[in-house]
This record gives sequence, C-alpha cells and structure tokens, in this order.
Amino acid sequence: MHSKLGAETTNGDGFGIGWYDATPAPGVFRSIEPAWNDQNLRELAGHISSHLFFAHIRAAIGSAVQQTNCHPFRHGRWLFMHNGFIDGFAAIKRDLVLAVDESLFPEIKGQADTEVLFCLALTFGLDDDPPGAVARAIGLVEARGRVRGVEYPFQGTIATTDGETLWVFRYSSAGKSRSLFFTRDVPSLRQQYPDREVLREVSDDARLVVSEPMGDLPGAWIEMPEASCGIVSKGDDRLLPFTPEPPQKAR
Amino acid sequence: MHSKLGAETTNGDGFGIGWYDATPAPGVFRSIEPAWNDQNLRELAGHISSHLFFAHIRAAIGSAVQQTNCHPFRHGRWLFMHNGFIDGFAAIKRDLVLAVDESLFPEIKGQADTEVLFCLALTFGLDDDPPGAVARAIGLVEARGRVRGVEYPFQGTIATTDGETLWVFRYSSAGKSRSLFFTRDVPSLRQQYPDREVLREVSDDARLVVSEPMGDLPGAWIEMPEASCGIVSKGDDRLLPFTPEPPQKAR
Amino acid sequence: MHSKLGAETTNGDGFGIGWYDATPAPGVFRSIEPAWNDQNLRELAGHISSHLFFAHIRAAIGSAVQQTNCHPFRHGRWLFMHNGFIDGFAAIKRDLVLAVDESLFPEIKGQADTEVLFCLALTFGLDDDPPGAVARAIGLVEARGRVRGVEYPFQGTIATTDGETLWVFRYSSAGKSRSLFFTRDVPSLRQQYPDREVLREVSDDARLVVSEPMGDLPGAWIEMPEASCGIVSKGDDRLLPFTPEPPQKAR
Amino acid sequence: MHSKLGAETTNGDGFGIGWYDATPAPGVFRSIEPAWNDQNLRELAGHISSHLFFAHIRAAIGSAVQQTNCHPFRHGRWLFMHNGFIDGFAAIKRDLVLAVDESLFPEIKGQADTEVLFCLALTFGLDDDPPGAVARAIGLVEARGRVRGVEYPFQGTIATTDGETLWVFRYSSAGKSRSLFFTRDVPSLRQQYPDREVLREVSDDARLVVSEPMGDLPGAWIEMPEASCGIVSKGDDRLLPFTPEPPQKAR
Repeated sequence: MHSKLGAETTNGDGFGIGWYDATPAPGVFRSIEPAWNDQNLRELAGHISSHLFFAHIRAAIGSAVQQTNCHPFRHGRWLFMHNGFIDGFAAIKRDLVLAVDESLFPEIKGQADTEVLFCLALTFGLDDDPPGAVARAIGLVEARGRVRGVEYPFQGTIATTDGETLWVFRYSSAGKSRSLFFTRDVPSLRQQYPDREVLREVSDDARLVVSEPMGDLPGAWIEMPEASCGIVSKGDDRLLPFTPEPPQKAR
Repeated sequence: MHSKLGAETTNGDGFGIGWYDATPAPGVFRSIEPAWNDQNLRELAGHISSHLFFAHIRAAIGSAVQQTNCHPFRHGRWLFMHNGFIDGFAAIKRDLVLAVDESLFPEIKGQADTEVLFCLALTFGLDDDPPGAVARAIGLVEARGRVRGVEYPFQGTIATTDGETLWVFRYSSAGKSRSLFFTRDVPSLRQQYPDREVLREVSDDARLVVSEPMGDLPGAWIEMPEASCGIVSKGDDRLLPFTPEPPQKAR
Repeated sequence: MHSKLGAETTNGDGFGIGWYDATPAPGVFRSIEPAWNDQNLRELAGHISSHLFFAHIRAAIGSAVQQTNCHPFRHGRWLFMHNGFIDGFAAIKRDLVLAVDESLFPEIKGQADTEVLFCLALTFGLDDDPPGAVARAIGLVEARGRVRGVEYPFQGTIATTDGETLWVFRYSSAGKSRSLFFTRDVPSLRQQYPDREVLREVSDDARLVVSEPMGDLPGAWIEMPEASCGIVSKGDDRLLPFTPEPPQKAR
Repeated sequence: MHSKLGAETTNGDGFGIGWYDATPAPGVFRSIEPAWNDQNLRELAGHISSHLFFAHIRAAIGSAVQQTNCHPFRHGRWLFMHNGFIDGFAAIKRDLVLAVDESLFPEIKGQADTEVLFCLALTFGLDDDPPGAVARAIGLVEARGRVRGVEYPFQGTIATTDGETLWVFRYSSAGKSRSLFFTRDVPSLRQQYPDREVLREVSDDARLVVSEPMGDLPGAWIEMPEASCGIVSKGDDRLLPFTPEPPQKAR
C-alpha cells in the first residue's frame, strides 16, 4: 500500500504467490484484487508451508489487471518474477516475441513484458545456465530497444528459481536500478539479536530477498549492488557481477 | 455444469472448499467464478492434501454472487454447508437472525440463508450435540416459516464437521428432499472392484458423501434415506432418523 | 490512490457510481476492483451522461470487499453514500438492525454500516424530511453506541439524493469530522476565471461536492462547516446547522 | 445457461456488450462473471439505449477467463465478435500474429483466437471492404492451418459493425457451421402478429441477428444459409454467398 523505495508507491493491481512442495511443479495462486484485503491470500498464507516461496504485488502500468499478467510466471519447475519494466515494450514486443522459441510461443497467455522476458530466458537456456540466459534475454531487450530509439530499455530486479536454487538480479540499462535487499546470514543475526524468537525458529540457511526491507531488525538487510546477480542454494551463496549479453554473442 | 439430480442444473455462481491440516482452524478458499474454469482451484487441488475436505458449488437463487455467500461457512473448527434453501427466507430472516446468539450476530457476513442456519445451529449447541442443534435450527425455521404462511419452509441436505467427525442430514418439510449419496465401505468396494488402483490407494475408512454419484463405479453409492442423519467418524459410522425439534421443546 | 485529507490514504477496495436518467430509478454500477484501473469505469464514464451523479471509492475497514458493500446504496429513487464509519459497529449492529423497518429488513444485502444507516434514515422518514431522518438515524447510532461504551459513535460525511435535490451532511460525535467541500457558484467562478473553457460548458447552477478539492482552481472550493447540512436543488441552495436527534425525541 | 443449438450448452465464462451513442467510438462493457447473475449487466441494460448493440456470452475453451478475452472486440468505430473457434490455434497462432499489421500488433491484449482474427481482418481492409477483409482473414487461417495439418481450421459465425452497417457471416471449413438466425422484416411480423405490442414499439427496419431463436414468435426467425454473408444497413439488406480468399490472392 505504501512502498517507500518503489517507483509505484501503491501496488494494488493484483498479486501472486508461488510455492514448492512434494509435487513436481510449484503451485501458483494469482488474484486481480489488491493483496491487502484478499481473504483467500490470508487463508492460504495460514495453511500452506514451503521451503521456498515467491510473492509479488503488482502495479499495472498500461497492461490489463488480469491473472495472466500477474507474477510469478511458471514453466515446468521454474518460477520467474520481475520488479520493473521494459521501456518502449509496445514498440519492440513483436521483435521480442519472434525471438521466443516456437514451442514456447503458445505458452504466452498474458500481455506482460515479464512473461515475454521469461520466455526469452527459457529460450536462451534458463534450464542450464540461468545467469547466462537472463544476460542474453536482457541483452536482446537492450539491442532491440536501442534499434527502436529507446535509450534505457531495461529496468528492474528479477528473481527466478527451479525450486532448489534462487537466482536474483539487479540491473538497469540506465545504471539506476530498483532496490533489492537480502538478509544477512542467520547465525550472525542470532548473535546480533539473541532474544528474537523468530530467529531461533528458522534454519541456518534461511534467506529473504525483498524489494525493500521489512520488519524491525536494523542491520539485518544488505542491499544488492547495481548490476549484480545473487545465487542462493543449500549451504552456499554467491554474489556476482551481472552484464547483459548482446545478441551477436548470444547466437 | 450439468447436474442430473439437482434442482438447479447449472451451479456456476461461485464455489468454496474447506480443508483441515495441522493448524487449529480449517482453511477455506472461496471464489465468485464458476468452478469449472477457475485456475486457482486447479492449483490448490493439486497442492493441498487433507484427511477431510468439503467442496461446494453454488447456484444463487436471489442472493448476490459474493464470497461471503459461498459455502462452506466456518466458525472455529466447524465447517457447514447446505444444498437447498429456506423457503420464504426474506419474510422470516429477521425472526431467525434475532434468534442467533448475540455473540454470533456480528459473524454474519453475507446474505445466505445457510449462514443464518449455521449460526442458529451454533446457537443451539452444535459444539456439544450436532444432530440436536441442527434439529432445533430447522425446527425454528419451520415454526417461523409456518407462522408467516410458508407451507414447506425447509429443503435440503446439510454437511457439517469439526474436523474429526462428519454429520450429514437429508430433510425437507415436504418430505421430498434433495438427493444425498455416500460410498459403501472401502473393503466391500475393493472386493467388488479388485482391479481398481484408486481403491488400493485410499484407507479402509475413506468416505465420500455427495449430492449425486460421480465416477464409474456402479454399486459404490448408497442413497441417504429421507429424514435421516449420517455420522461418519474414525472407525465408526451410523445412520439415524432425523426429525426437526420445534422451538417450544428447544428452550 | 493518494488521498491527502482522508483518514485512509488509499481507497482501492472497490467503488461505485450512481446516476439519473429518464428511467424512474437511478442506475448503479459497482465493482470490487480499484477504480484507478477499472476498464469498465472508463467506458461508462465516457458513455453515460447525467444531470446528477454520485461516485464513491472505498477503503474497507473490516468488512468484505464485495459489491453489496460498495456505495452508493439505492432504494427506489434514493441514493445514499458515506465517508466515515460507525464506531463499535459490530457491537451495536444488532440493535440498529432491529430498529430498521421490517419491510426494509430484507433489503439489507451487505455488511456495511452505511447500508444500515441508510435503512435507518429510510425508516425515520427520508422520503419526507431528509435532514430530520438523517438526524434521527445518527441520533440512534449515538444513543446505542454510548450504551455500549463507545465514546464517539459516528464519524463522517453523508450525501443523499432523490434525483432532484442533494442533501449533504458533515458531522461526527467527536466534532472532528472528515472533510467536505463544495464549489462556489458558477457565475462567480466564471468571473474569477474568465478564460476557463470548462466553466462556460457547465450551467449556472452546476455543483460539485467532494471529500477533498480536485483540479487547479484555487478559490473554487468552500469547506462545509462542522455539524452542518447542505441542500442543493434547482436554483436554490442552503447551508444549515446539523444536530443529531436522540431516539427519545424520534418516537 | 442452456443453449439448445450451440456446441457449448453453458456459456458462463464471461460476457460483453458493445453499443453506439453520440461519442465516436462505441462503448464496451465486459465481465468475467456469468451474464445470468451479473448485477451490473442488469443495471446497464436498464439504463443504456442504443440504435445498435452487440452482446456476446462466452464458453472458454482453453483460454483464460479474463476481460481481454471477452467479445466484442473494438478498434476505432469497429466492433467484432465470433461464435466458434480456430482449430489448432496454438499451433498456428504465431503464423497468424506475424501476418497482423505491425501497427496493430501492440493492440492484441488477450489470448483469444477471435482477437487475432479481428486484427487480421483489420490488416486486410475491414475499413473499406468488410466481406473481402473477412474472406482474406479466414482464407489465411485455412491456409496456415492446413500447412500444420489441421483439416477444418475455421468454424463459426461472425458479426462486425462500424456503427452504421452490420455484416454477419456464417461459415466453417467443414461446411457444418454453427447456427445463425435473423428476424424477418418488421412490417411482415406486424402483419403476422397484429396484437404484439413490442412490434409496434420498434421501427420498420429493426433487426435482431442471433445464434439461436429467442422469444415466442414462431415464424419470426430465418436461418442464415451455410457459407453466406448478410449485410444490414439503414433501409437495405442483402444476403450474399461467402467464400474465404486464400492468401496467394490476398497479396
């Protein structure tokens, strides 16, 4: 309702959650109502538990408020979501959609730029090399955008997962990316806040990655650097630089 | 979409599911869209498992299509749903609502006759004696209805549960109640259909209670008799006659 | 999205419009989505014209986001809407609902305090004496609230109309009412802003009454005083003091 | 709810209406709820009047229940709707979308085959030659479908209008098209039913074109022949044969 760091301070145009359990593909629940008063969201939040979940609230800028435009998007075991936009998307959508693998084309169900970006990442090898695939997808967006006269074609943070590992990205063509924060490792947090019950309830490798800090633990949040990619997996995490890969290199 | 035994052959005015898990109160998911194409329902059906669940599809007759009118209704650990109606409800609603315990009054969130019936049953002791409480609730409906000149005030089947035991009712003032079926005990079904995989996957005391038979197992379904109450609990079930209890007896 | 004077800065829990045309009863369109991206609202705004219309955006505080809770409420030729709340409504709802005329009781379709307030005003003579009926309705709310220990039972501004005359109220038990503004008479505005096209397009007796000033005409808006009632009708308007009428006087 | 002649007997997956008034572009109202209980539809039906309106109820076969998939579709002054489907649409959607004029590409907001068909018709000259444009659009669908091994690519009836003239089509690749009926001219109907009030209220050139006959006037309805195009304009109407135009001829 009142985002402090976001470009859109009100995110009331629908929302979505994705979560993993014993079934092969993640579950996804999406709604076109604001999250703040959605009764079903409260119910599900109280009755679903998962070792890994995604949650996204939406501020529609141009495209329709409909479930097929709500993040996270899913393909097989993959979830994908994005806080940002492709500038000049209407002008380059056709070019981008043509670059999507033909087998994935019928999977495009909504109008959202993020869904197309996800399909591009899948086309460019998300299954095998997530950072490379996202670099090639954004590289194509930047190349096609610039051809059409868009100065800064890409803006945003991205999170994607196969249910085991989490990849997050912070990047924008203009070098002024939307915010992204992650939590310090839990053992350090426990030392810092020895009296906090919640920190004893979560496991050593629990992590939150968020667009802006929540709660009341100063010092718990670390800001992702500009143009970086973070990888979180069981017992291991890394922070790497991120650069889009222009299309000539991609093929 | 095509009910064969129901009074309304199309039940597309929203739906609801309720289920029990480790948390004290059951989860409830309700939607105002037809169940047949609700994407979220498919997701939840694939990702929630429970030892006991309720599902209801709605054909609105007069009241609004809104989540607060969708069954099942919940109070604490209780779920309650109903296939039928209170005849002349608009005329006797005020009388009935006045009979609801004052502490429950603010819990009435929708317009549905069933929600009022549930609150009456809670008022009349659902926690301690479900068949008696339902008998007193319907007894009051019949008494108040007849005062207002309604010949057959109550029609329908009811299911209610506390998460452990299931109580189902089939009754109508006119003696022509809507249909209700339950499955024969699983060991008998396994003997009858030795090759059916599904029957090996379910436990000995699994039960389905439905408004009309589903699937392709002739002989699997037993019709509840008119004016009866069925009780299903772990390792035990009973079928009893059911008679509403007029209000003079109830107080 | 960003109310400056309202208690709730985000009003995204549905909205409603009501308008008058040649048919006897006004039309009402209500939606549970935020007004800011509702496609149907844009369509209707571009295709319906009326000499008198109501518009309301909602911030739900406790009650469900459903069309039957959206203002404006309608009865016959009357529309009624409210910016505010009845404090402790859950505790006194039963008392208030019992005071509603029995013939109106079945008309209550939602959970909103405003719908009950409207039914009370109708019960207490809205048709014949709108200021008196509203005074008696709020008087009852205050009396019943105080019995239940609520210090300031009523807060808000109200607008109601029969399609000919508009009655607006600003009142709160605490004497700190939500804001209400109306536009200065059009001839004066034209003198003040001789170059404004829009002022030449509207008739001499056009009026806007709003919760907070809009647009860019400083000096166009006059604040309704605390505890007052404004009446706007063809070629005549009045501003009167408003005092609730306690129930002992009402009967 | 109970279509007698349609392929889908229940059409509860949203609906839409379009109407013309003094503003240049038609108004469109769309909803994802079943038409039968949509409160807003009743309101609008009672308060909007127009010399020409479209109404469509939807049975979703595969694509999402969302407003951007609801007919009628609009572009400028044009409305377009369709009862039927493009067989194998997932397989040929990419081919078809590529044939849409680049300037129209960003206008595609939903997933519906009909929206793509409409964009193809606009690309192929709907503005200047509606029957020719529709013939070329369906011709392309058939050609692309057959390349992909679809035996009967097109099925359905189409209605389109610019607000002045109405063009309706009945055609299917298999020669077994969905039904389409129109009303006999009003003067003949008045002669046949001299006592019917409604026939005195409508003008001489009033026309209804519907998927299946309604009401209780036997003899009022004429079935459109297979592979035909009907044109209704002020004081004139024609019934012509219709044949799709294969793409080699179209360019």
